Formats: sequence, structure tokens, C-alpha cells
Amino acid sequence: MKIHNFSAGPCILPPSVLEEAAAAVNDFNGLGLSLIEISHRSKDFVAVMEEARALTKELLNLPERFDVLFLQGGASLGFYTSAINLLPDGGQAAYVDSGTWSAKAIKEAKLLGDIHVVGSSKDSNYDRIPACDAPPAGSSFLHYTSNNTIFGTQFSGTPEAGVPLVADMSSDIFSRTFDANPYHIIYAGAQKNMGPAGTVMYAFDREPLGKTGRTLPSYLDLSVHASKDSMFNTPPVFPVYVTLLTLRWIKANGGVAAMQQRNEAKAQLIYSEIDRNPLFEGHAHVNSRSNMNATFRLTDDSKAERFDALWNSAGISGLKGHRSVGGYRASMYNALPIESVETLVETMRALEQEG
Amino acid sequence: MKIHNFSAGPCILPPSVLEEAAAAVNDFNGLGLSLIEISHRSKDFVAVMEEARALTKELLNLPERFDVLFLQGGASLGFYTSAINLLPDGGQAAYVDSGTWSAKAIKEAKLLGDIHVVGSSKDSNYDRIPACDAPPAGSSFLHYTSNNTIFGTQFSGTPEAGVPLVADMSSDIFSRTFDANPYHIIYAGAQKNMGPAGTVMYAFDREPLGKTGRTLPSYLDLSVHASKDSMFNTPPVFPVYVTLLTLRWIKANGGVAAMQQRNEAKAQLIYSEIDRNPLFEGHAHVNSRSNMNATFRLTDDSKAERFDALWNSAGISGLKGHRSVGGYRASMYNALPIESVETLVETMRALEQEG
Repeated sequence: MKIHNFSAGPCILPPSVLEEAAAAVNDFNGLGLSLIEISHRSKDFVAVMEEARALTKELLNLPERFDVLFLQGGASLGFYTSAINLLPDGGQAAYVDSGTWSAKAIKEAKLLGDIHVVGSSKDSNYDRIPACDAPPAGSSFLHYTSNNTIFGTQFSGTPEAGVPLVADMSSDIFSRTFDANPYHIIYAGAQKNMGPAGTVMYAFDREPLGKTGRTLPSYLDLSVHASKDSMFNTPPVFPVYVTLLTLRWIKANGGVAAMQQRNEAKAQLIYSEIDRNPLFEGHAHVNSRSNMNATFRLTDDSKAERFDALWNSAGISGLKGHRSVGGYRASMYNALPIESVETLVETMRALEQEG
Repeated sequence: MKIHNFSAGPCILPPSVLEEAAAAVNDFNGLGLSLIEISHRSKDFVAVMEEARALTKELLNLPERFDVLFLQGGASLGFYTSAINLLPDGGQAAYVDSGTWSAKAIKEAKLLGDIHVVGSSKDSNYDRIPACDAPPAGSSFLHYTSNNTIFGTQFSGTPEAGVPLVADMSSDIFSRTFDANPYHIIYAGAQKNMGPAGTVMYAFDREPLGKTGRTLPSYLDLSVHASKDSMFNTPPVFPVYVTLLTLRWIKANGGVAAMQQRNEAKAQLIYSEIDRNPLFEGHAHVNSRSNMNATFRLTDDSKAERFDALWNSAGISGLKGHRSVGGYRASMYNALPIESVETLVETMRALEQEG
């Protein structure tokens, strides 16, 4: 039976990417050696890293002044890394608190400076993107989480803040087009639309870096990594390679604009059913809904056992909601085919028809 | 033709490990899903992480009070992480400078406290493990690099320092037995004897942690990761899984003591030839020689082209020395069969016989 993988991350990747990745673990580029047993300084792997960086720049249409790195530590280390590279000693910055990961980013940044939370939806269990005050004068940047995986909310576009932006785009990078010009740093863990767990992408403007007055630990200094072409130390070879394969797949399938169209169609399908079917209700406010993660619940909890049986028997996997929200969460990243969303919608209709 | 992979790291892994790893990228545990597209919170992956941690503890015979984590950032982030977890604000520590990686560890630790270099072999291009002074009174720990991959030197045993030890064991962990009791923290990038690039193992005594008076960034706080069973954030799924497969292979092949026997036999073979053959000389002093990386050069450089042709045509790969040392480097990690060392020795003899 075909499995419909709605996992929130690590998540579905294109079948062709998985096949190529498995083949490279056996034999890479016909070298007679595995991808994971060759030197990262070999020309074969250097070419992987260079293509992954260049393709990121191309697919995201990044300005020439931007650099791209593939590092380790996930967005969880990125919370601290992004702040320590930009926040001057004794400086201040503005943060939007739109979910669990935003709150974690705020916690790490507070170790480094004066952090102003300019908007929060915590009191309503993060069911919306909050209205925000303007960043106070003197803020070095505004930080926000573009998509909130757990709560199923997403910024509908780029905030207009009047200060440079820093964004954690872990769960919607490469899912829609955007203009990177207003950003100083964009960071994103790979394990949603980009690749497997184990690497985090940083895209950043080189110019504003190195001006904090701090001496940074080398691994946290984006300028150090940039000066070494993302090879300051041994990179996470396999995650970077699978990321490259996924980026090639995005390009071959029409680029980010085409991904966006497909993602909008999938989101339209599931949200229409949530709104139409009296047995379901959404968690996120309509105008904050995410195209990546749709959060919803039954209006009558007594039907849970039956609904779970229906979607399980349809081959649907990873639909259980995060414990902070409950209910269900359909994660619909780039690689999820619309047929999987159709299957889910069929089970929702089947539940309704049973009466 | 069989390839003899002498790469210094990432390096050779057991063929059975590579086969199992490739299979899991296609379908993991018969789930119908790839290892890299399932949730890290799924019971299938939680079991991987738990077994990898438990097997590390068993194979290294770690004391009960020790904890084991598989994190990201490599030893390069470990230089800073190990120091920030143990060095009190305004504190001091002793470091041995035995090579490039030691020097990098010292640089990062100096950001955090008063660092005493108690011994250095820098002036002789790190051709030996230096004689060391006792750590000054008040030193929180002595840090050293157990094996110096680039220069081919290795501590012959555990230093007697009179203070707790911290060691970067990236390039000889799981290659020989040792008593972990004198250590506060052991850390090791996976990409030598343990697995692929992309994860770093920390083994540490829980008791001395959390006493620095600092508030640590969460990702750098080993106690935070320990409290979450090494799943504070999304772990590097594939590198951890391949590490587990390699640990299982070590256990199935007699454990660390058996690895040590094999490694000693391989080292004996290559060093005997270096000492016997008038065309070659070693870089490292005899009593500092590494069982992992043998560094050597031709006594007559004019024979380089011919020697390179000989070993290349024998299927030998990764033998070129690091630019800091020149010449050749034979890295002989656990998974390298003695037949590969025999092949190398044959090419050295063939060169001699050509006269």
C-alpha cells in the first residue's frame, strides 16, 4: 500500500532523491567508494558543496551580496548564532513571538542583548500571527519565524518593519517566492522542504556582519565559515548531498514559483474541506493559515477512534497533532503529492457520510 | 579493482555498514518509508538513538555516572562546548598543544578563561607528543588531543595530570581500550572510527557539569541535551544511524580490545617497513607514533612520481600527506583491513627493488 507521509519533519522527500541518495551511499560518482567514506576535500565532494550553495542562491533569487552556508546544529543553534552575529554588545533587537520556536529564539537572544517582543499570540495558544508594534528605535533587526510548524500559522508575506529582517524559515523555505533584499540573515534547518536532518542553511548579507564588537567562537561566526566556503570544518556530507539532490529536484520541477503553486493548491484542498465539513474545525485563524501545516480537530471527540481507523487504513502516516495543540496536523511540504491530500480529504468525507 | 581507502577522514567504513545504510535510505525497518523521512520522535528512530548511546557506554566501558550524547557541530564546536561547560567564569585550565586541532581548541578556550599551555611540540612541526609541565594549581582540567591525525602522533596512554581530563578523541575513539574514570568530558567527531561526518559524540561525567556560574546558550549546554536524551532538537538522523551500525559492527567483531589488536598489527606492519626501507623515513618520533595515521616521506624526492604511480596502480586512495607535513599519510582506521596495509607495503618494496 502506498504510504501518504504527512510527517511534520523530518518529512517526505521526493522518491527520486531517496533513490539517488541510497545509490551514492553504495557508490558515489562511480568512484568505487561510498559518498560517506571519501574526503570532504576531494574534488567530488567540493563540487557537491559548491553546487548546493549556488543552487540555493539561484532558486531563492538571492542578491549578489548574499552568501550561503550549510552548517550544523539546526535552527536551535541558529537562534543563538543569528543573534550573536548581528547584535552589538549591549544592543537591542525586536522579536515576534508567534510560536514555540519563536519563544526559543527569544530565550537565546536574551543572553546577548535587550530583546523587545513586539507582538505575541501566546495567550491564544499561538492560533494566529500576532499584530505587532513597530520595532523600538535602535533595534538592530526584527526576528520572526515565517511558518509555525506546530500551530499551523504562517506569515502571509514579508513583514514591513523599517529595520533589517532576520528570519527562521525552517519550515517554509523553498515553498514560496520572496524578496531576500530586506533580510540580514535567513536560516533554515533542512529537514522540511530542503533535505534530511543534519544540516542548517544560512543565507545572509555579508556586509552587516563582523560589526558587533564581540569576539565570536569560531563555529558561531558566519564570516569564518564564509571565508572557508562552508568548509571551515568537516561538513555534514550526506545531509548536504541529499539537500543538493532535493534542490535539483525543485529546479527540474519548475523552481520555487512552481512549488508555491502546488502548495497553494494542496492547502486550498484541505482548508476547503475543513471549512465545509461540520465534523472538523481549524486551529489557526483563517488569515494566518499555513500552506505547509494545516492544524485541525474534530468537533465531536467521540468520533476520534473511527477517524483514526479511517486514515490509518488509507495509508496516511504522521497526521497526529503536536501535543501543544492536539487534534490533527497535515504537513504538506513540497514533496507531498496532491493525491495524498485528496486521500486525506476522502477520509474526512467518509467520516461525515457515516453520520 | 579493489580500492584501498587510506583517507584521513571522512574515511573507510565497513562494507556491511554501507550496505545496511543504503538499504535504510530506501526503506527503514520495513516501514515503507526512508530512514530520512520519518519523525525523529517515532519509536523506530528513538530506538536507534537509545541503542547508539547504550552501545557507546558498553563498548567504551564508561562508568555508570557518565552520559552519552550525539550532537552536531563536530569537534570544532566541541572545542568551545567542552570548555564552556567546565570552565568557571574567570577560571583556568591547562592545555597540551600537540597539533593543529589542539591549537584550535586552545584558541576557543581562551575566549572563556585563563589557558595555560603546559607543553607544545609546535617548534618541531608537531613531530612528537610534547613533554608537559604539571597543570598549575587551580586548573579545572587538562585538555589534550589523543591522536593528531595530521602529524601522525598519538598519546601512548592516558596522561597523569593530577586534575580531571578533557580529551578530543576524534581520531582514535573506539580504536583502543582506556579507562574513562579520569575524564570529565570526552568528545569525538564521528568521521574516523565511528561513522560518517555529521555527528559528534560527547561522553561525560554528569556530576561536574552546571557549576560554571555561566548561563549557557541551550545548544552548547550538555546538561540540556542530557535532560532530553540527546533529542533536545532534531538530531542528525542518518549520521547517528550509521554510527549505530558501525558500533554494532565493532561489537560483532570482538569489541574495542579486538580493534586495538588489529590496529596494532597494521601499525607494526607499516612502521616496520618505514624503518627497514632506506627510501622512506617517518615524520613522527618513534615513541609518539600513531596507530591510526602513519606519516612518512621519501628520502629521495626524485622518486615521488614513480612511487605515486605504483600506489595509484595498486588501487590505493587517500595516501597524500596533509599540506602541513607533506609526504604521505596512511590512515588505518578500524575498518581498514590489514590486506590494504600489505598492499601499501608491497608498493614500498617494489619501489626499493626498482633501485
